[in-house]
Formats: sequence, structure tokens, C-alpha cells
Amino acid sequence: MSTPKLEFKDSGYLDTALPASKRIYVQGKLFPSVRVPLREISVSQDNASIRVYDTRGPWGDPSDQVDPRQGLPAVRAGWISDRGDTAEVENTFQHASRRVEIFPGLKRRPRRSSNGESVTQMRYARKGIITPEMEFVAIRENLGREKAYKSETKRSSLLFQHRGESFGAGIPDYITPEFVREEVARGRAIIPANVNHPEAEPMIIGRNFLVKINANIGNSAVSSSIEEEVEKMRWSITWGGDTVMDLSTGRNIHETREWILRNSPVPIGTVPIYQALEKCGGRPEEMTWELYRDTLIEQAEQGVDYFTIHAGVRLRFIPWTANRSTGIVSRGGSILAKWCLAHHQENFLYTHFEEICEIMRAYDVSFSLGDGLRPGSIADANDDAQLGELETLGELTSIAWKHECQTMIEGPGHVPMHLIKENMDLQLKLTHEAPFYTLGPLTTDIAPGYDHITSAIGAAMIGWFGTAMLCYVTPKEHLGLPTAKDVKDGVIAYKIAAHAADLAKGHPGAQERDNALSKARFEFRWEDQFNLSLDPTTAKDFHDETLPQDGAKLAHFCSMCGPQFCSMKITQDVREYAETLGLDEQAALQKGMEEKSDQFKKAGAEIYVKQ
Amino acid sequence: MSTPKLEFKDSGYLDTALPASKRIYVQGKLFPSVRVPLREISVSQDNASIRVYDTRGPWGDPSDQVDPRQGLPAVRAGWISDRGDTAEVENTFQHASRRVEIFPGLKRRPRRSSNGESVTQMRYARKGIITPEMEFVAIRENLGREKAYKSETKRSSLLFQHRGESFGAGIPDYITPEFVREEVARGRAIIPANVNHPEAEPMIIGRNFLVKINANIGNSAVSSSIEEEVEKMRWSITWGGDTVMDLSTGRNIHETREWILRNSPVPIGTVPIYQALEKCGGRPEEMTWELYRDTLIEQAEQGVDYFTIHAGVRLRFIPWTANRSTGIVSRGGSILAKWCLAHHQENFLYTHFEEICEIMRAYDVSFSLGDGLRPGSIADANDDAQLGELETLGELTSIAWKHECQTMIEGPGHVPMHLIKENMDLQLKLTHEAPFYTLGPLTTDIAPGYDHITSAIGAAMIGWFGTAMLCYVTPKEHLGLPTAKDVKDGVIAYKIAAHAADLAKGHPGAQERDNALSKARFEFRWEDQFNLSLDPTTAKDFHDETLPQDGAKLAHFCSMCGPQFCSMKITQDVREYAETLGLDEQAALQKGMEEKSDQFKKAGAEIYVKQ
Repeated sequence: MSTPKLEFKDSGYLDTALPASKRIYVQGKLFPSVRVPLREISVSQDNASIRVYDTRGPWGDPSDQVDPRQGLPAVRAGWISDRGDTAEVENTFQHASRRVEIFPGLKRRPRRSSNGESVTQMRYARKGIITPEMEFVAIRENLGREKAYKSETKRSSLLFQHRGESFGAGIPDYITPEFVREEVARGRAIIPANVNHPEAEPMIIGRNFLVKINANIGNSAVSSSIEEEVEKMRWSITWGGDTVMDLSTGRNIHETREWILRNSPVPIGTVPIYQALEKCGGRPEEMTWELYRDTLIEQAEQGVDYFTIHAGVRLRFIPWTANRSTGIVSRGGSILAKWCLAHHQENFLYTHFEEICEIMRAYDVSFSLGDGLRPGSIADANDDAQLGELETLGELTSIAWKHECQTMIEGPGHVPMHLIKENMDLQLKLTHEAPFYTLGPLTTDIAPGYDHITSAIGAAMIGWFGTAMLCYVTPKEHLGLPTAKDVKDGVIAYKIAAHAADLAKGHPGAQERDNALSKARFEFRWEDQFNLSLDPTTAKDFHDETLPQDGAKLAHFCSMCGPQFCSMKITQDVREYAETLGLDEQAALQKGMEEKSDQFKKAGAEIYVKQ
Repeated sequence: MSTPKLEFKDSGYLDTALPASKRIYVQGKLFPSVRVPLREISVSQDNASIRVYDTRGPWGDPSDQVDPRQGLPAVRAGWISDRGDTAEVENTFQHASRRVEIFPGLKRRPRRSSNGESVTQMRYARKGIITPEMEFVAIRENLGREKAYKSETKRSSLLFQHRGESFGAGIPDYITPEFVREEVARGRAIIPANVNHPEAEPMIIGRNFLVKINANIGNSAVSSSIEEEVEKMRWSITWGGDTVMDLSTGRNIHETREWILRNSPVPIGTVPIYQALEKCGGRPEEMTWELYRDTLIEQAEQGVDYFTIHAGVRLRFIPWTANRSTGIVSRGGSILAKWCLAHHQENFLYTHFEEICEIMRAYDVSFSLGDGLRPGSIADANDDAQLGELETLGELTSIAWKHECQTMIEGPGHVPMHLIKENMDLQLKLTHEAPFYTLGPLTTDIAPGYDHITSAIGAAMIGWFGTAMLCYVTPKEHLGLPTAKDVKDGVIAYKIAAHAADLAKGHPGAQERDNALSKARFEFRWEDQFNLSLDPTTAKDFHDETLPQDGAKLAHFCSMCGPQFCSMKITQDVREYAETLGLDEQAALQKGMEEKSDQFKKAGAEIYVKQ
């Protein structure tokens, strides 16, 4: 019996999700092979177009015809091979069964460090080398910074921006490749970029860069197919997901990941212990270091860019969870807790941590040090188990850095608002400013079905305080596996949180899009308002629900107030009036109106009498 | 031609929105006629039921058969007449047209102060009188406080609660009627309670009480009917709206309001200038003080509980808006700005403010001093126009208090996260701690269609910092008039924000529901988890989307991870194991495990070997 072929339905609707947009590329100066994709949103009349960060890769370029069966082009292949420190190896993993179609497009063999030494971006950075990846992210991060960043600009200007409060972060006005190198060398930022995932476009995760978001996908034993997971990956990058974690736990875990990796332009993360557990029949106590190690190698060869590794779940912390409201809620954490208790031994990820580092550095897989003891309820926030583990993650970070492994730290979870800052500050202190990567946090437990909102509140705050990447939460959290729609709802909620954090940090240029959209709103350029928004289709549909006529898109009012009551319309009258005044008069207006009331009388009467 | 009768569709589905709940009443001790409604959610097995705040009034009591054509019973009528300081008057308003059916159920005439003096809750409070309204809100606010509030409780207990950070608010462990009186006398809280809205159940808005939320409804010239607006009011109180503002601007504005008031158990607010503008054909420049004054009286006689009055939009601030990104975005603010410019005179609400106070105090209509110059975009946040107006609102608060008028202050709008605290602190300082009532604020402008989320972030934060009531924002904000579904989405998002704020403030008892829900989650009591949530139906539907079978509601896993990988299941094993230990052993566990590793070995092996 032959294996049935996967059937990818036409996802053409994704191409129309972001109208009035065109794909442009900015070329590198140090490395001409660097081509950074951006999305340029055209704006009507004589308004400047707006460039926005674009995570869609070739899927977002209409001139690229991507076939999921062939996968994406390997944009980084030349950069990797040119460094001359990796060599091809035989594939460790051998397909045993043929339950599903194996990805047919991969012709190359895996690479790894030719001599076992580090081939990480951190190593190059520490040696003073600027890589093409570093130049790529520098260009990518500089969005909107080409234009001058002047806080003294008039509020009505697109360039006006509030001075932010970044709590001691060191965000420069302009990102140079050298700045990227310094931050990566210092361990304050990572560029997840496995040598076996050359399809991925480089991106950076660090407190001094734009706040990023991750979308979790993956099937479970009871739900979802490979096609659906590839679709969810595409769906999440369409709306702005910066990385994707494949948390599959069901059957066909290797094949699912292969299809996702070969089609993903963003870094892919996994939690290798999920697959390791599949291999020992779902019985944590039968797990061995060797089985886990081989799983790491298998996934590193496939190209996974970062691994969640719960090496901080130490034996001595586990009893501290017994009196918690909700014990251990991390899947990985609970698997390891069970292993530790069954064997009465220290966590084997902790005891073998240096060997893990040796694997990670040979492919440049980044560490995402898992918070297996994160709080699963408001009650358990910032307790001894959580903070004890965090301290251990700090120790492990130092070891990982000794091996030149890129490292970020995972964080909670469920935290009431007033404990979020404490959590962030402890993370910075205990883990030496390694990038923080948090799940939410949810700020209340009482709204299952709306946890994208309970957690967007916490995510925006912790992003402002210094978290580098926010792991999204979908409306399905705690209730079921997210569908494509849930993935979209989660991504949009987290794009909002991340952007609100960038604004509050005073990230240079971040406010330009807000300014452009508000200007369009104020000038009744409805289509521009839709096009500049995170989700143009939804904005347009909502508008059309009450005023579906095409003419309404030109109307100087909307259904909220109707034509007579539109405050924006009235204010435009006020502004137009102000503009009829000369420069001197305008200056006087700024000081207050009383001394100029005569002029106002003369000019103003005319304006309003006309009506 | 006879006027067509209104047709109210069966809203029976609202009664099933909150399953496993029963209506209970707590009787007053000072006033036996005080009966405070609560909703009691039953929880399975031997878990305690949970009582929650209930804003549904008679609509939430299955033994009351409410007919929208008759309206609600006048629960406060006796309290009002017993005070002996009001008398019936002739109705000022005479129906001119019969475009729609006039509410048929009202038999009584309006009341007002018999001698023109104040009949406000503030007056009674200052005279040292505890009213039935004050006892009512004291009982209502004490939810969950009957049980001891002990922060040293174990985290696994339902009574555990984090110590909050209230930024200097004075939240007592227990709310007495005397405390309510003091707060109202001091002006730090208001009980909106027009003598002509005796159907309303008293509630309190103040920084030392639970954070409240308001839902805006109302038709416009282009959309919606009276039946729909009554439905939206019911919909909003079903999900927890504490007050409702009727912002109607279309035709039949008086009749729409009448139907809403007579059927509303929560205070109703309006912006009287909308109706005044209808009366002068939508031409702000033709507005007169007399016309506006008569509108105030008309609405006060109907029973509106609070009026938004934009008396702070002073002539001299208006030019400061000309260089803004989005000028004036408040409807009321822009109408007054236009009037000021057209007449070159100071805002007539400012110049006639003492006369307005005399009207307000004669019915106990509370002031909601409008922020007509609030920022309509991130760019305009905390600018001179906004803060100048806020200072004026502080002056007006002192005048209102001189007349013993209850007063709250409206706030923005659009504010990036890092400027929210400054806004809150200035409000407390400049307006003498009068309750703050904010619209959001939205923390970014780039997500039309999702502004319930952009603003829930800001709302949760400003609520934590001290805002007493949060005005909701629906997903339709900026795009169209909200439907019933949008009203629900807005209310739920704001219940989340308000509750997150209560938790962060350390509001006594606030965490009990979170604890109960998390415990249900941890113990796989799916139905309890749904029933304890803000929106049980949605939570259940989401769960059932992947696991629709009835058996799945008893399953110790969900579709997110499947049966083998459920961390909660594994943790329960850990806890069960811990519980097999004796008291001494448990104590040792708390200190860390190392010294007890032998016992662990002995007992633990058994647990896990069984599987």
C-alpha cells in the first residue's frame, strides 16, 4: 500500500490578506547577497508610504511561486558554507515507517561543525566577525529609522514620537551591524540560525531590539494533520509571527517538523523532550540521556533553530511545588519532575548540560532554557520553585556562554500585574541579561476563552519592562488545540502587545505607523486606515457591517456618530481655520488665545457662518 | 395612522448564559428593605460555591418575570420618598410626535428637591447620614470578604491572596456602611442614583472599591432601533457591565432613553449635549444655554444618573489642539469647541456651571466631567490641551462639591503605556481624588478591529493605578456602531481588565475566583472551570470544538496535549505522592529535598513503578 500524498489546499486568500502592499528588498552594504524583505504599504494622495517589518519570507513575494512540496530557497546556504567551519554528515535519522508522505524536496545532507568547535553567531561575534546574518538583522531592525527621529517634532508630524521609558535598556538611535555583533557577543541578544535551516531569514531577539512574538503550533495525539500545521505556520507569519514553535506531540512528529522547517522563513523552535517521550512510549521514567541526546541530534540535523531545554527543573525544587495551587503546568517540567522522582536522581539535563552545549554549538542551535516550574495560576506566581529555577537558569546561562552557545530564558505564565516588574528585574539580574522569552503572562485566571486578552495585558507590560520575545497565547489556551483562526487571533493580540511595548520603550521610529494611521483616520481616508492596520480585512469588514456602500468609504463620517455629530469633522474645521492664520498668529495661538481674541472673531465668524 | 408597537424578541438565551448559578439576596442590617443580589456559582464535589457580583437586577432572577413594556420594580422608591426632601412635579417634557411607541409602563410623575436644596448622597454623607443606598453598596462590595483574608494562607488554599500594590489607595479589609459614607462625603466615591431612577440598584464608583466598567450603547442617525438598544443594555449587564451610557444621537432620542431607563437595574449615563444638538438641527453655533438647560432638566426628570458635561473645554485651550495629530476627538468637546469659536465666547457650560450644579443637586444627578480635549491618538497623549482641561476639571470639582454634587472625572483615550501613570497621578492631584473614569486608554493606534484589546491593556494598568471606572471599548471602535456581539466582546475584555486591576491592587477577596477556577482546572473539573469563568458558553464551546464528546468533560486531559502528555496529570501524581508523606516529611519537603532523599526513594519508587 503506498503512502497517500499530502494535499495542500490553495492558500491564495493569504495573499489578499494585506492589501495595498508591495514587497521590497533592501540590499546589504557589507554583504551584497543580503536582501532584507520589507512590506511597503502605499498610502493615498500625497502621503508617504509606510514600510513595515515582514516575516513572510518568499510566501510574501508574489514573484516567488512557492511549492510546499519543494520548500523555500536556502537563502543562507552560501553564507554558511563560505565560513568553512561546517561539513556535511550522514543523516542520523532513518525513516522506519511510511505512515505519511516524507518531504520530497530535500536534496542536501545535514551539516555540522567540522571539528566539534562552536559554529555559533556568538562565536563569530566574540571573535569580532560581522556575519551576513548580523547585517541582515541590522537592516531589518532599522525600519523607520532612516528618517530622523526627533522628539521635538510637531505632534501632527508623522515623525513625532514620545520619549519612552526603557528601564535602562540601551536602545540606539540607529542599529549598525557592529551593534548587533556587540549585543550577540555580550549574550544580550540571539540570532537563532541553525546551519541546517538555511531557508530561515535572520532575526534577532534581544531587549535592545524590536519586541518579537512567537506562535506555537503543532498537533497532538488527538487532533490535526501535517497540512494543517503547515497552514498554521503560514497563517502565523502572515500576521507577523517572528518565530514558530512546533509543539507536536502526536504521531509523525519527525515528518511534521520536516514539512514545517522546509517551508518556514522564520526560526523554528521545539521542545525535544516531547519527541523523546514518544520514543519511550510516553513513560517518562524510561527516558535515558542517550535517547534524549539522539533526539537533540536528530532535530539539530533537521534544522531546528532553538530548543526548549528544562535543565533548571532540579530535584530539590520539585517538592516546593506540592503545596502550589496548580503544581507543575509545564509539560516538559512535569515530565522531568516525574523522571527525577522515579529515579531519585538529579535531572539528567542538568547533569549532562555541558554535553548538551557541545551538541548545540556544533549546529548553532540556540538554547531556550525552559521554565519547567513556571506558575500555572495567579496564586503560584513568583514563588520559591519558580525563582529557584530562575537562579539555576542563570548558572546554566554562564555555562552555555562558556561554550559560545546562544541562550535565552523562558518565563511565565500566570502573574498578577503588580508582580510582573519584579519577575523581569530578577530575570535580568539572575540570568545576566540573557534575552527573556515569556508566555504571556496571564494577569487573571478567570477568563478561559479569552486568554489571548488576559495575557496580552501582561505581555505588553513585561515587553515594556524588558522581555525580548513574547510567546503568544490563543483564545483556546487551557481548552483545546488552536485552529488557524485561533492562531491568527493570538498573533494579532501579541503584535498589539509587542508594539505597545516598543512604543512605551521609545523604540526609535516605532510610532510612525501609529501616526500614519491616526492621520488617515482623522482625514477620513478609510481605505488607508484599513491598509495601515494590523488586520485590514477585519477592519474593513467591521466598517462595512453598518455602512457597506462603496460611497461610505469616501464619507467624512461613520456609523458611530453619523454625519452631523462627527467630532473629527468638526475638528478639521477648527484646524482649517487655524491654518488660515499667518505665522505670527499661529505662534500666538500656541501661547493661548486670549490676547488674540479679536483676530479670532474676525476670521472665525466667517468660517462658521458659511454653514 | 397608529404608531407601531415595539416588538421585543424573546431573550431567553440570556438566562442560559450563566449556568450552575442561582440568584441569592443578602439583606441589610440597618435597613431590612435592602436586598443585595448576588450570583452564587455552584461547584461540584465538596468544593465551596463561589459568590460573584451580579449586575443583572431582576433580569437575573428567574422568579421575577420582567416585561420590558412594564419595566422594572422601583426598589428605591420607598427610600427616596421616606427622606421627605423631594416632591412630585409636572413633567417638563411633552411628546410632540409619535414616531415610535412611548413607554407605556410609567405611572408616576418625576420628583425633584422640594426646596431646591441638595438631595444627593453626598449631602447625606456629609451630614453623617447613612442611607440605604450606602448599606446596599457596602454589602455588595464585601463579596468574598466574609471569609478571612489571610495572605499567609497556603497557595493551594482558595483564600490565598498576594499582597497587592495599591499606590496609596486606602482599601479596607472590610467595607462598612460608615466607610462608604466617609468616602462619599470626602468626594472620593460616588453612588450615581437619580431620584427618578428608582429601578436602579445602588453601586459605587471609587478608588477604594472594586473597579467598575461602563458599556456604551445608543443608536445613531444611520443605525439601530429601540428594541436593539434595550437588548444591548441587557446584554451588557448580563456579562457584568456596572453602568450603561446611552449615547444615542439619532431620532427618538427621548423615547429610546425612556425604554432603557425603565428597564435598567444599573445607573444610566448620558451626554446631554447630543440631544441639545438634535434640538437645534445639528448646528452647534445655534445652541443656547436655555436650550441646554432645559435638556438637562428633561433628562434629570427621566432619571438619568450621571451626565457627561464638557465644561472644561475652555476657549483658550482650543487653539492648542490645532497642531495635534488628531485635533479634538470627543464629540461633545468638538461641539463645544465649534460653539466657542463661532461665538468667540467662553464655553457656556463653564460660565453657567453653578446653575448646572443647582439642577444636578435637585435630582442627585452625578457629574461626569467630560474630557472634551482627550487625546485621539498616541501622538496627542498628555499634551497641554488635555492637561490644561484636567486642571480646569479640578476647579469645577471644587465648585460641584460646594453644591454637594457627586462628581467623577473623565479621562483618555489614547495613551502609550509609559505615560499612563503620569496621567493617573495628575488626575488624583489636580482633581482632589475625585473618582477617575477613563475610556481605555488605547496603548497603540495600529489595530482598528481589535481596540478592545489595545485598550484593555491600558485599562488594566490605569485601573491598577487608581481609576475607579473603565469605559469599555468594543472591537468596532473607530469603525462602526457596536452590535450586541461587540457589546459582549467589549464587556468581557473590560471585566478582565477591571479584575486584573483588582488583583494587582490586592483588593481583599478578589483572588478567590481565580483560585477556585485554577483549582478546578488542575483537578480536571471541566464543567466547574467553564461555570466559574466570565463566559462559560464560550469556554465550553472552545473545549468542545476539538473534544465534543460528553465523556471528554470527565477526561483528565484535553486536546492541547492529549492523555500522555498532560502536565497537570503528572503534577497530580507528584502531589499525591507528597500527600502520602507524614507531617514531618512534608515539613522537610518544604525546606528542600536533599536531606530527605532516602524517604523519597522509598516512597516514590512505588508510586511510579505502578504505571
